[in-house]
Amino acid sequence: MSKKTNNDKLMIFALGGVGEIGKNMYVVQYGNDIVVVDSGLKFPEEDMLGIDIVIPDISYLTENRDKVRGIVLTHGHEDHIGGLPYVLKHLNVPVYGTKLTLGLVENKLKEANLLGETKRILINADSEIKLGSTLKATFFRTNHSIPDSVGVCIDTPEGAVVHTGDFKFDHTPVNGQYADLQRMAEIGTRGVLALLSDSTNAEKPGFTPSEKSVGIVLEDIFRKSRQRVVVATFASNVHRIQQVINAAEATGRKVTVIGRSMVNVVGIASDLGYLEIPDGMLIEPEEVGKMSADRVVILCTGSQGEPMSALTRMARSTHRKVDILPGDSVIIAATPVPGNEKYVGRTIDELFRLGANVYYSAANPGIHVSGHGSQEELKLMLNLMKPKFFLPIHGEFRMQRRHALLAEGVGIEPENIFITDIGEVIEIQNGGARRAGKVTAGNVLIDGLGVGDVGNIVLRDRKLLSQDGILVVVVTLSKQDGTIKSGPDIISRGFVYVRESEGLLDEANRIVSSTLHKLMSENVNEWASLKTNVKDALGRFLYEQTRRRPMILPIIMEV
Amino acid sequence: MSKKTNNDKLMIFALGGVGEIGKNMYVVQYGNDIVVVDSGLKFPEEDMLGIDIVIPDISYLTENRDKVRGIVLTHGHEDHIGGLPYVLKHLNVPVYGTKLTLGLVENKLKEANLLGETKRILINADSEIKLGSTLKATFFRTNHSIPDSVGVCIDTPEGAVVHTGDFKFDHTPVNGQYADLQRMAEIGTRGVLALLSDSTNAEKPGFTPSEKSVGIVLEDIFRKSRQRVVVATFASNVHRIQQVINAAEATGRKVTVIGRSMVNVVGIASDLGYLEIPDGMLIEPEEVGKMSADRVVILCTGSQGEPMSALTRMARSTHRKVDILPGDSVIIAATPVPGNEKYVGRTIDELFRLGANVYYSAANPGIHVSGHGSQEELKLMLNLMKPKFFLPIHGEFRMQRRHALLAEGVGIEPENIFITDIGEVIEIQNGGARRAGKVTAGNVLIDGLGVGDVGNIVLRDRKLLSQDGILVVVVTLSKQDGTIKSGPDIISRGFVYVRESEGLLDEANRIVSSTLHKLMSENVNEWASLKTNVKDALGRFLYEQTRRRPMILPIIMEV
Repeated sequence: MSKKTNNDKLMIFALGGVGEIGKNMYVVQYGNDIVVVDSGLKFPEEDMLGIDIVIPDISYLTENRDKVRGIVLTHGHEDHIGGLPYVLKHLNVPVYGTKLTLGLVENKLKEANLLGETKRILINADSEIKLGSTLKATFFRTNHSIPDSVGVCIDTPEGAVVHTGDFKFDHTPVNGQYADLQRMAEIGTRGVLALLSDSTNAEKPGFTPSEKSVGIVLEDIFRKSRQRVVVATFASNVHRIQQVINAAEATGRKVTVIGRSMVNVVGIASDLGYLEIPDGMLIEPEEVGKMSADRVVILCTGSQGEPMSALTRMARSTHRKVDILPGDSVIIAATPVPGNEKYVGRTIDELFRLGANVYYSAANPGIHVSGHGSQEELKLMLNLMKPKFFLPIHGEFRMQRRHALLAEGVGIEPENIFITDIGEVIEIQNGGARRAGKVTAGNVLIDGLGVGDVGNIVLRDRKLLSQDGILVVVVTLSKQDGTIKSGPDIISRGFVYVRESEGLLDEANRIVSSTLHKLMSENVNEWASLKTNVKDALGRFLYEQTRRRPMILPIIMEV
Repeated sequence: MSKKTNNDKLMIFALGGVGEIGKNMYVVQYGNDIVVVDSGLKFPEEDMLGIDIVIPDISYLTENRDKVRGIVLTHGHEDHIGGLPYVLKHLNVPVYGTKLTLGLVENKLKEANLLGETKRILINADSEIKLGSTLKATFFRTNHSIPDSVGVCIDTPEGAVVHTGDFKFDHTPVNGQYADLQRMAEIGTRGVLALLSDSTNAEKPGFTPSEKSVGIVLEDIFRKSRQRVVVATFASNVHRIQQVINAAEATGRKVTVIGRSMVNVVGIASDLGYLEIPDGMLIEPEEVGKMSADRVVILCTGSQGEPMSALTRMARSTHRKVDILPGDSVIIAATPVPGNEKYVGRTIDELFRLGANVYYSAANPGIHVSGHGSQEELKLMLNLMKPKFFLPIHGEFRMQRRHALLAEGVGIEPENIFITDIGEVIEIQNGGARRAGKVTAGNVLIDGLGVGDVGNIVLRDRKLLSQDGILVVVVTLSKQDGTIKSGPDIISRGFVYVRESEGLLDEANRIVSSTLHKLMSENVNEWASLKTNVKDALGRFLYEQTRRRPMILPIIMEV
């Protein structure tokens, strides 16, 4: 298969996941064969007001749809599979994934009514898949905070391109799924042309602790708690969930599962055999009340303080089924994702106010470990693969940068290390690599059902409106006799509380009238200039009076 | 002075600073004598859209203005003095502070044109001030991230109330200002009725390192840097600034100061003798270009990634005077305040992209230490003071809670520990303490020149507007013949980008028309119901089509 056709080139680029955490999507192309690795979503930045989620711009893929041989998934996290429902609508190609990953994907596609038309191909660590005439993908098991995670090795006529997926090296994995060091070493021995590796924890020295270390802490808290134990963690962290179940079993407690995504994942993972749940271990939330408090564990969502999540509602005493009682133990087995610190902090405060004993990572570091490898593990991966070219991926620029320094440290030539932006193409031909321009890439913002219909203008307006609100000025003019027939009426939303600012608004009114009279007396009467002048005069006045700049919307009509 | 008048009571409460970080303001009242400790501001929570700063509601103080004997300041940080310009406008009472604190306050009052009418009284560690007929305040030196910080001991007829201010125990302070352990011990020996102590780092085990440890790291980075060194830190951290100067001197570099607040503080602190700056050490930003890069240090603001700050503008290459050049070293000598993580991260990324070597706390923990004591220091303070009653202050609830646990650990009776909300009064009479209801307390939001004129309704509108924007619907009706004379015209701001949504807006138009026609044919023609019906019909339609709920503002007029 790997006969070299010399005019063809190997292209590697990211449509998402570099210079950012989230919406991972990487592309490997040789000649007419394109393979896509992952298809994730990202949660909006704080300046993307009103946006629900963000996905990559896939123009390049839709423009080359006939070349795209498939999407290979490394694992089932939202930032790797969450974009699929949107991408597959425009690009109907086969999706490759391991059992749990496909299980989670199918659940998504069902909700999006795409399950029927999507070809899903199950892979395992021993699969070999042919992608077009020139590409072949094989896989290697990794450790991550979700089972069934893999890395991908894509053989191309130029050589092997390895994508690690998200990984850590957990030498005592919860589910016995060991990282396949042997296969990684073997790939390294065969020779790796380019390595794309996870930079998430490139700033963290040392080794990330084993997931098992969390289980010990959990069981200890379960044992000493006299009352109910509530555990909030990421729904997708099946290992963590397994350890909650194990700790419950070891301490004679039953587990109830609360929160849509948690119920979802527990269902899928246990159906597919990724969770071992003893018979009778799970109980319905309704039964919690009937049981003695020291026999209950409540497993729920909300570890990020998400406003609508189960834990947040419990903390606010607005949950239909479960209240937090004084003396309950609440374990938030996660660290806040950057940007969520304040929400998580507020939830912790509310839980303490209810009299709960709250365990959280800032005060109890042992209750969470990362799913991403730290510096020593990143070096281990580099030394197993011994790549010629290295692309640090999956991280903010500073993490990629630090990962690049680690790579230099283990002996990769600096000129063979490429930190790329989204869309930036690394072209490899006859063993030489170079930066070769950019393909279309960017953010597609999803707001409700709208995909990409919210652009910079709309966001700028939302930003303005959020700062100082809006004033709508309504006037009816008669241009004949140059008089104001009705109005000006000024309606304020988000600017000032009218009842407390009548004086200000009356004065504003006078200013609009006088401006209009002046203009009409000067026979200025094109709508455009009337509006601009009203806007300017009113804006100036309000800024002087309040130092605020509300959006001003003049509506001038003629009778 | 301390003759006991038995019908009088001692009241202790916070108007700000408990259940929150910021706007510290504590009140101690005995009979007709009120003393206020600190008068700070807080930066707005993320749901306070468009708000500039937040100060405490001081209704209780203005209603009892004749009793307020003065405001005692513990140190010169914004969250302890930033509210003064607003408070003093409504409450003209004497302000007591140490030299540097008053220096910073005077600068503030000048800007607010309040310097003239405000009585400012300089105190030092040996001052004894009489506050009314029953209260007396003395002080003890502490260590904090700004010089001249003190704790306050207020003698009352019921006993001594001690307020620690913000503190750590730094056994090797930069400026030789040692915490006055002897005086603290002496106060403890005389007996402390109630201790109010800083809870900021109550979650942190161990001891907070000495500020001096940062100086060593700075000098090391200065020495190995071949080019310019940029240091961003809190302008108020005079110790840190001194260490930058010292490191510059030790490595033969000159220092230029950039950023309004940094220039301010360096000026005030050196005028008052809190900064030792060798002659010729400071240079103008304009001179930087003329000097060899390895001879320059740029000291600037922006350690929090504040959008308009010096460092942020340098990172975006939009600073008038200084560019970051490849190979420059940038030290961000601070940790992000919760909520600023993303801004700081972005600044770091931009600096790396410019080719700078960036040192920041996540990757280089040694470049910053906290100004607040950790658990062992909090216990040390508790054991020095040996109070009967304990009130953990200055922290979010979870920090107060943990501080309370520490207090129990050193032997304070649990029933003598009071975690209070703002306004909640602890009343002490004849040696007994109890919760005694609440005084008015809350947030006063400042937006531009408006103080308290932005309330929940305005904030709720801003929130709505920020999520899905606004649609203004303008129609002119003739009620006689029940027809639409002009419109409906629909104007969208922050909802959808009109050019890409003509179809949607046309359909919206039709829905408004048909709704109005239907109503008028049924002779429904009160404005109120016409507007409500248009709002509902349009809202329903838009939600079905877009899953968004823009604010809808119907403007219906009659000819």
